[in-house]
Amino acid sequence: MITLLTDFGTADYFVPAVKGVIYSINPAVQVVDLTHEIPPQDIQAGAFTLGACYSYYPQGTIHLAVVDPGVGSERRAIVIETDSAFFVGPDNGIFTHIYSREENHRVFRISRQEFCRPVISPTFHGRDLFAPVAAWLSRGVPPRQIGEEIGDFISLPFAPPRIEPSTGIVHGRIIHLDRFGNCITNLTARDLPPGETQGKIIRVAGQEVRQFGEYYGQAERKDELFAYPGSAGYWEIALWCGSAAAHLGAAGGTPLTLEPEHYS
Amino acid sequence: MITLLTDFGTADYFVPAVKGVIYSINPAVQVVDLTHEIPPQDIQAGAFTLGACYSYYPQGTIHLAVVDPGVGSERRAIVIETDSAFFVGPDNGIFTHIYSREENHRVFRISRQEFCRPVISPTFHGRDLFAPVAAWLSRGVPPRQIGEEIGDFISLPFAPPRIEPSTGIVHGRIIHLDRFGNCITNLTARDLPPGETQGKIIRVAGQEVRQFGEYYGQAERKDELFAYPGSAGYWEIALWCGSAAAHLGAAGGTPLTLEPEHYS
Amino acid sequence: MITLLTDFGTADYFVPAVKGVIYSINPAVQVVDLTHEIPPQDIQAGAFTLGACYSYYPQGTIHLAVVDPGVGSERRAIVIETDSAFFVGPDNGIFTHIYSREENHRVFRISRQEFCRPVISPTFHGRDLFAPVAAWLSRGVPPRQIGEEIGDFISLPFAPPRIEPSTGIVHGRIIHLDRFGNCITNLTARDLPPGETQGKIIRVAGQEVRQFGEYYGQAERKDELFAYPGSAGYWEIALWCGSAAAHLGAAGGTPLTLEPEHYS
Repeated sequence: MITLLTDFGTADYFVPAVKGVIYSINPAVQVVDLTHEIPPQDIQAGAFTLGACYSYYPQGTIHLAVVDPGVGSERRAIVIETDSAFFVGPDNGIFTHIYSREENHRVFRISRQEFCRPVISPTFHGRDLFAPVAAWLSRGVPPRQIGEEIGDFISLPFAPPRIEPSTGIVHGRIIHLDRFGNCITNLTARDLPPGETQGKIIRVAGQEVRQFGEYYGQAERKDELFAYPGSAGYWEIALWCGSAAAHLGAAGGTPLTLEPEHYS
Repeated sequence: MITLLTDFGTADYFVPAVKGVIYSINPAVQVVDLTHEIPPQDIQAGAFTLGACYSYYPQGTIHLAVVDPGVGSERRAIVIETDSAFFVGPDNGIFTHIYSREENHRVFRISRQEFCRPVISPTFHGRDLFAPVAAWLSRGVPPRQIGEEIGDFISLPFAPPRIEPSTGIVHGRIIHLDRFGNCITNLTARDLPPGETQGKIIRVAGQEVRQFGEYYGQAERKDELFAYPGSAGYWEIALWCGSAAAHLGAAGGTPLTLEPEHYS
Repeated sequence: MITLLTDFGTADYFVPAVKGVIYSINPAVQVVDLTHEIPPQDIQAGAFTLGACYSYYPQGTIHLAVVDPGVGSERRAIVIETDSAFFVGPDNGIFTHIYSREENHRVFRISRQEFCRPVISPTFHGRDLFAPVAAWLSRGVPPRQIGEEIGDFISLPFAPPRIEPSTGIVHGRIIHLDRFGNCITNLTARDLPPGETQGKIIRVAGQEVRQFGEYYGQAERKDELFAYPGSAGYWEIALWCGSAAAHLGAAGGTPLTLEPEHYS
């Protein structure tokens, strides 16, 4: 099984060309779209979404991830092998969460041209380089045949929340907005255990979140912001039947603080 | 085969997480997207779209439908078995058309935790509860093993058009807008037989539809609204190479009347 | 394998109904979405996108292409057989690039009702006529059994660039905008060999493109337009980390000229 995660959108010939190349090499493989709607060239968003769903796939799945503003430049093309899966894509940080969560990961630089298409367009490595490599992996070619192992691959600095020792105030940020307008933060249960929200407050974009619970249907005051531990492992901020993101004017990167209420 | 209909969109990790869980339980199953673009939390739109396409699928298909504003609350999770298919989703009315069209339907409340993921997020039953149940059904587990049969499941009041006995005027409404801006009404051939449109008029949003036919290419006056019996079994209102919905300023729920012309 | 290219969008019941019909006839076939986001009724855009990706698919693939403003009228429904693939859809020009690129192509008019659904909606041939024909082809029915061969099928006049003999100025146009805002022109390597861009200039929408290269990362002046030979075989105009289409206010059809620089 090969999954695809890109910023190609679904309106152009990009995704179907990638799939055609894969099926031409391995007609029996199953190709599954993760998403093609990563915001154009937003490596961090691609890394977040890949990190939020790769682990649900069966042992041996090959994840092809292409958000690649540096295509055609000197950035490297890589294959990663972990205990449970393979990953194929550019070495630009899109696999940061794989490196941090998968203890055993070996990274190989793609260098063997015979596993690529004969002519490689400098603007479409998804079709000409990554797709055929993923297809050959699905036919059983081991990563070490596709290129040499490397150690200096790129991880993005996804800064975890920072705690002020003197005050206990936690400085975090919003890392993702979902379709429903929920704001996914980088706060986890380590920063705020679900059972210990009494007397806490989140300040973000000039507003305050004072309601906490397991899911937003629990919000007592339906017209106020509500925080709950989301399904991706992070605290999320929501608004009952509305968009917290629009209400806050928040975006990926918007800073926030988690404070004891009496600091207000 | 498992089909998916949700309001998750295709930009987030929701859909790929659902698929990953399914494939992990049954790697051999075929997963088909119906749509993930039901407007957020619009149960009625989800019911309409599911009702318009489920019947084309092969015997034994499992339809997973998740438009679920009540996730995490006390609303029940159910499996439906009909003569031709299975349905999995929340008991909130999304299966209303299944109940009304499939004479034999048995409804089971999902209660056996061993067919769900070990930890069930209160905000993502699609991934943690519905997906694994659908996958186990596809592996042959019968619904009665997944939970007890119930009789008090929820149907939405999809009011059919109402006829004024004294005048014969039919009061209906628009139930759906499609991508082309066509307005799907709740009028059927029972309300207006395709051969008996002479002298009829539809009034909607302050305007009149006076042209009727089999398909909108038949419209003689290309700049006027045109009604035809649509492919989902309802009369639709269209505008030649334009959007009837935009022209009318119509939305789901907009009322209309079907009248004899001399009432104008 | 059956691929689908339509202007149906992915929010309605159209695409899942088509897939259901296919799977009901051939549950074992693999259905792959090329795209469903061709702009409504834009035959030329459909022809471009199909032309840009069909050739990557395995021998024997069946391509179903439905952009069909004339549905229900007298326009014909056809099957095309080439050396490598089959094509099913309306005879309205959507297969123009197939005719021009595939030397051997035989075109058959679909006339045998037994390969269609029993009732054919005049507004939804995708579901009732093209889908079942594609499914029967995938089960091995030869095109000549589905209808008689014809010779007067429709090709659109995709005018290639025109060269002014006296000046050498090439008159072309923009044929497509992609998700990234890149403007795909109809200029090919015949009009402008990649190694011979010195002293050339493209004029489009009142602006000038003076930078040329292999890919847009090469642009020296990042705030200026840049042209490179795109992955679909045409010169494209891009703007570094921006939308050339928005910058130019360009659309499909916008004219351009390729001139020697001293004409400025």
